[in-house]
Amino acid sequence: MTTGSPTDPGAAAVSGGPAAGVVDLLGLLAYAELIAFFRLAGHADLAPTLSAKGELAALAAVEYEHYRRVHERLTRLGVDPESAMEPFVGPLDAWHARTEPQSWLEGLVKAYVGDGIAGDFYRQVAESADDDTRELVGGVVSENGRAEVIAARVREAVADDPKLAGRLSLWARRLVGEALSQAQVVAAQRVELAALLAGAGGRPAGGSEGAKGAGASDLGAVSRLFARLTDAHTARLEAMGLSG
Amino acid sequence: MTTGSPTDPGAAAVSGGPAAGVVDLLGLLAYAELIAFFRLAGHADLAPTLSAKGELAALAAVEYEHYRRVHERLTRLGVDPESAMEPFVGPLDAWHARTEPQSWLEGLVKAYVGDGIAGDFYRQVAESADDDTRELVGGVVSENGRAEVIAARVREAVADDPKLAGRLSLWARRLVGEALSQAQVVAAQRVELAALLAGAGGRPAGGSEGAKGAGASDLGAVSRLFARLTDAHTARLEAMGLSG
Repeated sequence: MTTGSPTDPGAAAVSGGPAAGVVDLLGLLAYAELIAFFRLAGHADLAPTLSAKGELAALAAVEYEHYRRVHERLTRLGVDPESAMEPFVGPLDAWHARTEPQSWLEGLVKAYVGDGIAGDFYRQVAESADDDTRELVGGVVSENGRAEVIAARVREAVADDPKLAGRLSLWARRLVGEALSQAQVVAAQRVELAALLAGAGGRPAGGSEGAKGAGASDLGAVSRLFARLTDAHTARLEAMGLSG
Repeated sequence: MTTGSPTDPGAAAVSGGPAAGVVDLLGLLAYAELIAFFRLAGHADLAPTLSAKGELAALAAVEYEHYRRVHERLTRLGVDPESAMEPFVGPLDAWHARTEPQSWLEGLVKAYVGDGIAGDFYRQVAESADDDTRELVGGVVSENGRAEVIAARVREAVADDPKLAGRLSLWARRLVGEALSQAQVVAAQRVELAALLAGAGGRPAGGSEGAKGAGASDLGAVSRLFARLTDAHTARLEAMGLSG
């Protein structure tokens, strides 16, 4: 993705500022981390023990730190971070509203599945962006071993009570279905981001669609990217003792 | 408070572990920070802008970091942090349940008043504890200039709409009234903590009451401590353009 073409999403815009796709990616990531922080913290009442509440707070604090780094990067790029986040407030809030966990285990599965699929998504999209963005995104979405801890907890719970497996598998399927549905909304509305996605989907971005919306070929590439994300999701379910 | 008497709340217990009053103080502080983290984060829906949500997350993240430090200290002292926090879950949860902010401004006033009075309280009580505890508590409750920022926000809002002053002053009075009421409950139930409080209230701790409950003279000293806290609270209200 370093062809130097004006539609190259990883290249700086003519004005010398960052490419719009990169601004979208960082705005999306910043709001995703901020709302993940608030939503995780909001699950405190579900946590069964003081110790679980403390661990939950630790997970949330990590999301805040990620938000802070991406926010800082946007500011350094000369972009208003709040404007960059704004387009993604609706879709991300909608995802969270439709996937409100009703139990501690549902909350754990949501944290694991949500972080996992989001991490894969950001990393793949960032592959098509500039080096600095790729490095920032890679650092922010690295899981620091906490994913394994969460997966082990769910696996233990399912081993203790095998009836949970079916219910939690359905829940995980709903989480990813709602995520892909919101991601499609975003891809259809944000042409520059869709171009980055298309790069991540395995074909060169750009083309002759202009700036009105993502072209059909971009959306095809986006679907291929989503298919890869779903495969990784299935592996993640198995790590929790669930089925895809 | 270094008389070496067995009832000296700053001295190590006979077993070589930390004094029970110190464990109580740190347990109280740890849970207060943890629940403040969750409650602050829970106000996200009240924040009027994305930028305000980000600042709120930053405030909450500071509370988490404080919790982490106190939790770590308890562990290092050989104390189970969750057991140390447990006695204070009821009173602190009750305070938060009775002081649920209904607007962004009420949330700001609560953060300012709550942090302020809690900070004064912890610092004064820690004066009677050992050096390490005093240093930890002082560091954890230092306000880092954010109190001034919050006070300025409220002052501006009240200057714009003077009708707010009466309502917010009543709100602040309720916050401190409920806090003192819960603190009395705690002081009556936790004899070792009450002894530390009595030290902070201006008379030596200990006496012949045994371990059944705080003696009347301790509770008198506690009341004097609360009177000083209330004076500081009034000064804080004035900083927000409110009356006591």
